[in-house]
Amino acid sequence: MRSLIAVLSDYGLKDHYAGTVCGVIKEVAPDAEVINITHQIRPFDVVDGALKLKWAYRYFPVGTIFLCLVDPDPTAVPVIVSTEKYFLVCPNNGIGSLMFEEEPPEAVYRITADHYFVKGKGNFRGRNQLAPIAAELSRLQSAHHLGEEIELSQLKRFKLPAPKPLGNGAFECIVLDVDHFGNLITNFEFNGALPRAAEINGVKVEKSADSFAGFKKGELFISVNPENHIQIVAYMASAAKLLKAGRGAKVKLYF
Amino acid sequence: MRSLIAVLSDYGLKDHYAGTVCGVIKEVAPDAEVINITHQIRPFDVVDGALKLKWAYRYFPVGTIFLCLVDPDPTAVPVIVSTEKYFLVCPNNGIGSLMFEEEPPEAVYRITADHYFVKGKGNFRGRNQLAPIAAELSRLQSAHHLGEEIELSQLKRFKLPAPKPLGNGAFECIVLDVDHFGNLITNFEFNGALPRAAEINGVKVEKSADSFAGFKKGELFISVNPENHIQIVAYMASAAKLLKAGRGAKVKLYF
Amino acid sequence: MRSLIAVLSDYGLKDHYAGTVCGVIKEVAPDAEVINITHQIRPFDVVDGALKLKWAYRYFPVGTIFLCLVDPDPTAVPVIVSTEKYFLVCPNNGIGSLMFEEEPPEAVYRITADHYFVKGKGNFRGRNQLAPIAAELSRLQSAHHLGEEIELSQLKRFKLPAPKPLGNGAFECIVLDVDHFGNLITNFEFNGALPRAAEINGVKVEKSADSFAGFKKGELFISVNPENHIQIVAYMASAAKLLKAGRGAKVKLYF
Repeated sequence: MRSLIAVLSDYGLKDHYAGTVCGVIKEVAPDAEVINITHQIRPFDVVDGALKLKWAYRYFPVGTIFLCLVDPDPTAVPVIVSTEKYFLVCPNNGIGSLMFEEEPPEAVYRITADHYFVKGKGNFRGRNQLAPIAAELSRLQSAHHLGEEIELSQLKRFKLPAPKPLGNGAFECIVLDVDHFGNLITNFEFNGALPRAAEINGVKVEKSADSFAGFKKGELFISVNPENHIQIVAYMASAAKLLKAGRGAKVKLYF
Repeated sequence: MRSLIAVLSDYGLKDHYAGTVCGVIKEVAPDAEVINITHQIRPFDVVDGALKLKWAYRYFPVGTIFLCLVDPDPTAVPVIVSTEKYFLVCPNNGIGSLMFEEEPPEAVYRITADHYFVKGKGNFRGRNQLAPIAAELSRLQSAHHLGEEIELSQLKRFKLPAPKPLGNGAFECIVLDVDHFGNLITNFEFNGALPRAAEINGVKVEKSADSFAGFKKGELFISVNPENHIQIVAYMASAAKLLKAGRGAKVKLYF
Repeated sequence: MRSLIAVLSDYGLKDHYAGTVCGVIKEVAPDAEVINITHQIRPFDVVDGALKLKWAYRYFPVGTIFLCLVDPDPTAVPVIVSTEKYFLVCPNNGIGSLMFEEEPPEAVYRITADHYFVKGKGNFRGRNQLAPIAAELSRLQSAHHLGEEIELSQLKRFKLPAPKPLGNGAFECIVLDVDHFGNLITNFEFNGALPRAAEINGVKVEKSADSFAGFKKGELFISVNPENHIQIVAYMASAAKLLKAGRGAKVKLYF
């Protein structure tokens, strides 16, 4: 089986950056296969990267190497993290935090094997340092020769804000993400019961459904997103546009 | 030869959705190769998906599996369609209609092999149901063990509106699509003769050419698009912007 | 090792164009691997394509075939260019010019093997002519049977404007490109010393740094881009937006 390297970045698609990451990998590991999760993480936004990684990782085969290239903080050292099933190659900036809640880190290595780095011009450690290391890792299937093990406690981690209980089955939540369809994805994880109502920007949404059947175009309702979060949807339309709401907006959910 | 799965969706590229479809496929069929036709079909727009599929399929090798993920209607059951040269995996919502005019369906199977579905969280049958079935199909090269054969007549199909003859060699047509370059692609299929003029939004275009040579930047002319449709082009510019016209706009063509 | 074909085009991602280029390649050369450098070169913009190719090529393995599909001039004949390490397949419109300054052309072949062309409908020689030739080239690893050698002097080439010395260590430069992050990349190649100041649209930028550490969000500074050009950056923000400057803007650099 060919080794998989799944890439997540904020590099966008208009430049040559994402393409050259792939070139660097193929130079080192011609048999590795590169899959692009997305290159449109919000620029410099580690939280957005952490969310998309959490929502994506479980759909990849055991052994996949996640190369996470969102890097606002140049003081965050490059690391390899191994979990039971996967590897991460990333700056130590917290980007694995949300994935690790479900798939805990087992070991962390500060990358030291700088002889593998691309002697490219300029600065661009995502491509010049992390990409060739991910490619070497796909060949070696072990981080031992690529870095120095550090304490798990040195791995930077953060948590998302939890929904705030308001009493009487009501919760104050936030919009974590607006997806391509304009669905407003909240920080409330579905636990078997859908809210009976939601309130956002002064608008009350009073329908909820676990399927998209039977709605009219533009009709607002509450449902569960593909990764099990409560979301506000406008059928065949953008809830974000209809409700003029975006990431960070407050949503009240009533159960 | 590695089996090819060509994916067409309205998932966009900013989220993890398209990437995870690929992950699901590689989990089931590590040797399959995934090619992205586009993930930017207009959201929920089966007609747009059907057009792009019609325009794309012929350029893929025999045996390619087209995984078509545009799914506005949750009551459309997931099917596998086999043609002489290809397979389609899609909801039964008509997305193969325009391709089938040239490459007729030979058999249709309602997908029943739900033991192959991804036990993912939330609802997302494109990724959770159709993607793993496409991957199994790439291994089995047969739909027999994945579904139950149904009548060809149960396959949902639609037609595009035909150009309306107005007499004297004139036709009322519509703009089917505006491509990345801003070319306005009509529903008139080239049959050997270019129109001498076109009229759209009150503007008359009176040049036509089968090559782009000899035009000035921004000059409007009539030509044939890469898939043999009559189109209105602005040389090195966007005809859509210049003519303030989009999909669905009426165009008169004069032969 | 599988043969690599790296594609650079202005086809965008919303249509089926880029996907079908890949399909055409796999039909001819099932073992070739296609890497997308970018499909978002500015439409018809050979200079933008030449820049991105120059900035990308060095990160690809020896033997990579660069398929360059930016084609505003239908009178530019399709060619194969071989260099010491790579092949280019492109119209003879100058798109290799900037790469060739570092990786000189060794031979040029006018493509004549039209029996390999796709007998597709309509006109689209990027996909119908250049793509299948690139795929054949990946199998043959030689251009001899695909074209007729022509003089190196017939290869169309251009140069970028050089920074203009103004005396006292000052240079008038231009912005070559605005990348996905909004960084303003100038035509001044870093030669070991960073400018102490830059002036653009009446704004003076008076910090320079070879790392992104220690800046505040939105703070402007001068640095070196990943391909060794002097650039103006706004930390975790878009310098292009902040300075209301784009490609072609004049920048004064003071050393």
